[in-house]
Amino acid sequence: MATNTVQTGSATSTGVFTSEFLLKHWQGHRALTRRVIEAFPEKELFSFSVGGMRPFAELAMEMIDMGGPGIVGAATDVWKKVEELDHYDKKAIPTTKQALLDRWDEITGIIESYWPQISDERLREVALAFGMYENPVYKTLFYFIDNEIHHRGQGYVYLRALGIEPPPFWDRP
Amino acid sequence: MATNTVQTGSATSTGVFTSEFLLKHWQGHRALTRRVIEAFPEKELFSFSVGGMRPFAELAMEMIDMGGPGIVGAATDVWKKVEELDHYDKKAIPTTKQALLDRWDEITGIIESYWPQISDERLREVALAFGMYENPVYKTLFYFIDNEIHHRGQGYVYLRALGIEPPPFWDRP
Repeated sequence: MATNTVQTGSATSTGVFTSEFLLKHWQGHRALTRRVIEAFPEKELFSFSVGGMRPFAELAMEMIDMGGPGIVGAATDVWKKVEELDHYDKKAIPTTKQALLDRWDEITGIIESYWPQISDERLREVALAFGMYENPVYKTLFYFIDNEIHHRGQGYVYLRALGIEPPPFWDRP
Repeated sequence: MATNTVQTGSATSTGVFTSEFLLKHWQGHRALTRRVIEAFPEKELFSFSVGGMRPFAELAMEMIDMGGPGIVGAATDVWKKVEELDHYDKKAIPTTKQALLDRWDEITGIIESYWPQISDERLREVALAFGMYENPVYKTLFYFIDNEIHHRGQGYVYLRALGIEPPPFWDRP
């Protein structure tokens, strides 16, 4: 019954959310994550975690290594293989907060510069992301965003456990 | 310079993500959150947290109290006021895992049943959500989803701190 209902809805839907929305949505989330990185004390950013999880610098590097090679793949269909991604090599993680923030800002620029190459048709096209994940490009991009929200939420717990007030979740464009 | 680039992109974007995608995206995330609720031991679901944060049952109730009244508001423009939402009254929180899951499933049904009433035009319309947040309806719905991912990520930390393996983040439709 629910299935019929959904099919009725989709038959009339012509596309609601534009490419521009997706870019702003992503960069808005990335701006908040940047403020979470900044909120960590230098040492705890690279060392503190709860429940045996990865420190926030490693989580942020996962976002960087998805977002940078991910936007290039989305735009050009040239994807790094999963095993080529930097977060599989912990030596590639910057060792200071400033270096991590610089890397973050570099990815922000890469996303802005590649985005205009991604047409609406390309967003709908099925691509094999990182040689492994077959999905429409827009779904792959939502995966990056959702993965970032997920891990950033974990960073909020780390900050609270450290007695630090995190930046407000709702403060995004 | 980046602004010019974005404007170029948006001028040609006609709408990529359909209403159907948004519903599946939301319900997919909700199905995962349900598995996270299930993963908690009964007692810890209502009592355990890290860093003085709310236990996961309270976070799940926030999602329920946004999602249920939120979908009704999106469909009918009759919004509960923020101060009328149940999560401002902790007595309204179910006291067993099963009761919380039942409440969760009830909201799943409400979302399915109201969704067909929401046209693409309505999704783009600006509405005053909960008498307080003025945004296009689709943006309000994304807020609910993102808020759920954010708090569910926190639940993952609670589970890890309890020595429990959470359900895989990527396992969504």
